[in-house]
Amino acid sequence: MPAISQKGQSMPQSPIRKLVPFAEQAYKDGKTVYHLNIGQPDIKTPQVALDAVKVHSLDILAYTRSEGSEGYRKKIADYYEKNDIHVNHDDIIVTTGGSEALLFAFGSIMDVDDEVIIPEPFYANYNGFSTASGVKVVPVISKIEDNFALPAIEEFEKLITPKTKAILICNPGNPTGYLYSKEEIKKLADIVKKHDLFLIADEVYREFAYDGAKHYSILQEEGLEDYAIVIDSVSKRYSMCGARIGCLVSKSKEVIATALKFAQARLSPPTLAQIASEAALQTPQSYFDEVIEEYVERRNVLIEELSKIEGVKVAKPKGAFYCIAELPVKNADKFAQWLLESFDVNKETIMVAPAAGFYSTPGVGLNQIRIAYVLNKDSLIKAVNILKEALKVYKD
Amino acid sequence: MPAISQKGQSMPQSPIRKLVPFAEQAYKDGKTVYHLNIGQPDIKTPQVALDAVKVHSLDILAYTRSEGSEGYRKKIADYYEKNDIHVNHDDIIVTTGGSEALLFAFGSIMDVDDEVIIPEPFYANYNGFSTASGVKVVPVISKIEDNFALPAIEEFEKLITPKTKAILICNPGNPTGYLYSKEEIKKLADIVKKHDLFLIADEVYREFAYDGAKHYSILQEEGLEDYAIVIDSVSKRYSMCGARIGCLVSKSKEVIATALKFAQARLSPPTLAQIASEAALQTPQSYFDEVIEEYVERRNVLIEELSKIEGVKVAKPKGAFYCIAELPVKNADKFAQWLLESFDVNKETIMVAPAAGFYSTPGVGLNQIRIAYVLNKDSLIKAVNILKEALKVYKD
Ligand SMILES: Cc1ncc(COP(=O)(O)O)c(C=O)c1O
Ligand SMILES: Cc1ncc(COP(=O)(O)O)c(C=O)c1O
Repeated sequence: MPAISQKGQSMPQSPIRKLVPFAEQAYKDGKTVYHLNIGQPDIKTPQVALDAVKVHSLDILAYTRSEGSEGYRKKIADYYEKNDIHVNHDDIIVTTGGSEALLFAFGSIMDVDDEVIIPEPFYANYNGFSTASGVKVVPVISKIEDNFALPAIEEFEKLITPKTKAILICNPGNPTGYLYSKEEIKKLADIVKKHDLFLIADEVYREFAYDGAKHYSILQEEGLEDYAIVIDSVSKRYSMCGARIGCLVSKSKEVIATALKFAQARLSPPTLAQIASEAALQTPQSYFDEVIEEYVERRNVLIEELSKIEGVKVAKPKGAFYCIAELPVKNADKFAQWLLESFDVNKETIMVAPAAGFYSTPGVGLNQIRIAYVLNKDSLIKAVNILKEALKVYKD
Repeated sequence: MPAISQKGQSMPQSPIRKLVPFAEQAYKDGKTVYHLNIGQPDIKTPQVALDAVKVHSLDILAYTRSEGSEGYRKKIADYYEKNDIHVNHDDIIVTTGGSEALLFAFGSIMDVDDEVIIPEPFYANYNGFSTASGVKVVPVISKIEDNFALPAIEEFEKLITPKTKAILICNPGNPTGYLYSKEEIKKLADIVKKHDLFLIADEVYREFAYDGAKHYSILQEEGLEDYAIVIDSVSKRYSMCGARIGCLVSKSKEVIATALKFAQARLSPPTLAQIASEAALQTPQSYFDEVIEEYVERRNVLIEELSKIEGVKVAKPKGAFYCIAELPVKNADKFAQWLLESFDVNKETIMVAPAAGFYSTPGVGLNQIRIAYVLNKDSLIKAVNILKEALKVYKD
């Protein structure tokens, strides 16, 4: 029997995956499980997007251009323009989710054993994409005490080697909810220019910036044209994760030309989903206003309730819809499993994501969990109450 | 300005891409261009698939499971059962096109610098996926004189090294149209077992087997359970290339578990397209009967007309919808460009794919082209006539 690859063996499993059997058992035991563990919002997809595929007039569901249909890319460019980001449709490659945009970016700028510096905790699948690309993640730690703000630039500089090819940030951050300031972006701009590195910004949560804060894109930073690569996606913006449409955006002609070769090899992004995504661009501002209001309320309730629990420390998120909470437990992994296996309040329990999977430094974040506030307020209040009761009795 | 990766630099361009500007110029010059160069069929998508998305009742376009929805995978398993292929839904991972299934297969079984042996000419994007995965393609030549039958097994054995991890075949073949016999598959089964290699079969053209020949899948070969990986796709079967749905199928639990980790990293295959693809499984047999009849007629006309041209040699395809033709020219690449740039018959010309891009041995296939018979009979006759007239006057 032939052996699978070392790469395949070292592909990380999602930090939530191993809890799935326990969640399934919890269902079987008749428990209700509040899912605080996933980035699948409960928010409705804009009707205009859902309707667009209902009235499609295709008789052949054909490939589009590998870089995405020109019509759609032009409208994406308009969307960026409205967000004060000046790009042309030629600077955009439509991808199968932000996921594929990350893979194309990694492939275009890094070879095997090259290094990418990422503030941790970070989106867990960056590990998977790195392994798939043969690239090494070099973490720079950001701290809950600082709300997960950008680590000092010297911390980055210490880690730069001849193998370093890029810095990758997620803004606003999953799992931190941290929104980088313009000043932080400028610091990053300086360091990548100084060391001739690419700056990749995963901006899939761009719209989810709260408390009047404005998102500042790396594409708005002058002089960064040759360095900046943005990863984007319709998944969270329009609550259409299942569309599988994202894009890679860069003013660097070389980056685009190279990413396009990866895109051509896989032929085309999904056609029906491009129709839905193009229509989604007509979503009225009122939709976003309501969604943001909803998330802000949820966040406020969540943080308020969490803060009331003794021994729980929580960073206040300024964007996205996640937060990291530090718990008075030794091993959040075991605690999360125990919640599903052995705990309930009136037959209800919660599923949370142990945060260790979002760190790549071993031993860090062991007592942290990530909570996604993708449930309505009432459910969140109930869920946090379950957490509170659980912490009263849990012993590790 | 930071440099792009060596991998990115060596990503091959599609063999057709460089002709695109010449085709665009031809349009500007007012010429009609018959496209014999692409694998995008003109056949209508089954209505049942197109309708399914029109009546969707989603209010959140959510991620599905990373391996594809269970309902859809169960129906795929039924489809295989009808084709005498006994697999379970757990043996299937739904992918974003056959393209992604190839990437997952390569990643799961090969590390950087590992080797995969592929009979050439082969589907050009195997080169792209190999480069993206850091894997080396080792070609074994199949010949137009033999209709591109399986090369002698000794030819494979000569190429096996400690780095060899797999043999990859395309059955029926793009660009050859060759359909491997049961005996040929058995020979491959023996050699992979003997040398402990994986056998990957790209069977995306399974239904396109002509003249009463029956397709024999590597999954039907007993004793090959630990070795066989099938790449499949709805793209050609239902003329729904734009759906971007395929799958990876293997009885090897280890291969599936590993491929699943790659699938989890990118979250989910497209949801709307899974709805369409699930519905497509209800396509009545009459659809396929008509499509096959259509392709057989086209092939017959095409081969007949090509055979009439002096100096043209052509292998008779037994499957898929491509054929390789050898022309009395030195450099088919230049000839293809000249057809677009400088030739027409009553303002009509043709676009063909130079076959060199389907070979990885340098210098082979330079006088060959690939013709996709994705046009109706009348257009094919006109197109071959243009080729005939062109060859009368072309000088290289
Ligand atoms: C930070 C971040 N980047 C990228 C993605 C990938 O999303 P998609 O591939 O659905 O666009 C996600 C999904 O959760 C994410 O949280
Ligand atoms: C032999 C072969 N394999 C795989 C593919 C990939 O197709 P898709 O990704 O659309 O399933 C193609 C497309 O032309 C092909 O010809």
